[in-house]
Amino acid sequence: MMDIDIVISCEDIKEDRIRDKVVVVVDMLRATTVIITALKNGCSEVIPVLDVDDAMELSVKDRDKYILGGERRALKIAGFDCSNSPLEYTKEAVEGKSLIITTTNGTRAIEGSKAAEEILLGALINAKSVAYKLAALNKGVVIVNAGTYGQFSMDDFICSGYIIDCLSKMTELQMSDIAFTSHYIFKNNEDIISYIKNARHFNVLKELGLEKDLEYCCCKDITDAVPVYRDGAITIL
Amino acid sequence: MMDIDIVISCEDIKEDRIRDKVVVVVDMLRATTVIITALKNGCSEVIPVLDVDDAMELSVKDRDKYILGGERRALKIAGFDCSNSPLEYTKEAVEGKSLIITTTNGTRAIEGSKAAEEILLGALINAKSVAYKLAALNKGVVIVNAGTYGQFSMDDFICSGYIIDCLSKMTELQMSDIAFTSHYIFKNNEDIISYIKNARHFNVLKELGLEKDLEYCCCKDITDAVPVYRDGAITIL
Repeated sequence: MMDIDIVISCEDIKEDRIRDKVVVVVDMLRATTVIITALKNGCSEVIPVLDVDDAMELSVKDRDKYILGGERRALKIAGFDCSNSPLEYTKEAVEGKSLIITTTNGTRAIEGSKAAEEILLGALINAKSVAYKLAALNKGVVIVNAGTYGQFSMDDFICSGYIIDCLSKMTELQMSDIAFTSHYIFKNNEDIISYIKNARHFNVLKELGLEKDLEYCCCKDITDAVPVYRDGAITIL
Repeated sequence: MMDIDIVISCEDIKEDRIRDKVVVVVDMLRATTVIITALKNGCSEVIPVLDVDDAMELSVKDRDKYILGGERRALKIAGFDCSNSPLEYTKEAVEGKSLIITTTNGTRAIEGSKAAEEILLGALINAKSVAYKLAALNKGVVIVNAGTYGQFSMDDFICSGYIIDCLSKMTELQMSDIAFTSHYIFKNNEDIISYIKNARHFNVLKELGLEKDLEYCCCKDITDAVPVYRDGAITIL
């Protein structure tokens, strides 16, 4: 029986709840979708950093090697190569490069999960493959939702429910109350959109004209890339 | 438009999210149900305390005036008059007395909410009357779920959803993502039991033979008593 739990935002991570666990960081709109997409398209590694200045400083060492990506208030950062739109991270743009990324919620969730035994990155686009990996690791799991500005976000919550649904078909789960509830939400909204269309963050992105991003982020299982964070860098093992 | 939000457990309260708000503390299994029941049955005031020793010390000053109630690990505390069963707090037991109560989650949730402008106590048994009071106060609302041992608890979550449902019929609400989700859960489980039967804490109490307590705690709107916490004591204004 595998224990599975959820932390609802990057501000609610408590070290004693993730220690010795496998953490899956989920920020489906859009940081983890971006990172998975970049790595699937041949990006060599992703380096998450908290500050814009740190990202800039790191990149100047070897400007051709690096791509600078991310967002503040959902928009592209001045001087950066890419915004937080997964559609920009094509093979042409990222192959062989190292991506330095800074986002409002996703990079904080990764940073806050460092006490975990292993940190995977999940989104709808790789959910089933994340579940396979979790089943193989066979340890207690905590899905850390990045959330939005420190708060619970419906998008990450239903994504967690879908990962749990996939995993429940592979192994027997002991779900915490919050894990059960996210799974319940997914089972009642397998199309995703019927629930997620009510999320504040979804509507912020929609109002910014990012419908194509939203459509892509809501696709299930389009890649088997499962990124792993270790020692400051995210790669596919 | 009234803002409404939820904090999912007593360990997740952050002062800046409750300041200037009306907080409703919910611990439907069973602390707030107990307190509401005691006050409705003529108890003069309820004094929540965090420690068993503090409760004992306070009561010895005038042992006849006080009733000692509460739980540790859901069981009666040695030397106390009552356990955390609302059915014990009859008119005969509590009328004219002052109840000193200490519980694992509920009293911590009240303690943690002191930065709020006003603190009400809610449960299923008084939900509609809590909603009337919130509509009259007409301020931003945060429902603080006590949770169970610092974690999200399905019982408090669906109770919050019912309070929100009642309030949504009285005034227009701007729900946070977590508030929307609790309301969604209630709307899909208006009978309460179909959802709550999956809660860990519900099953812990059931295994302790407390079915009658559970049945009582799951009754909606049997009283219009809305307790208010001010300066260390809970009363009905």
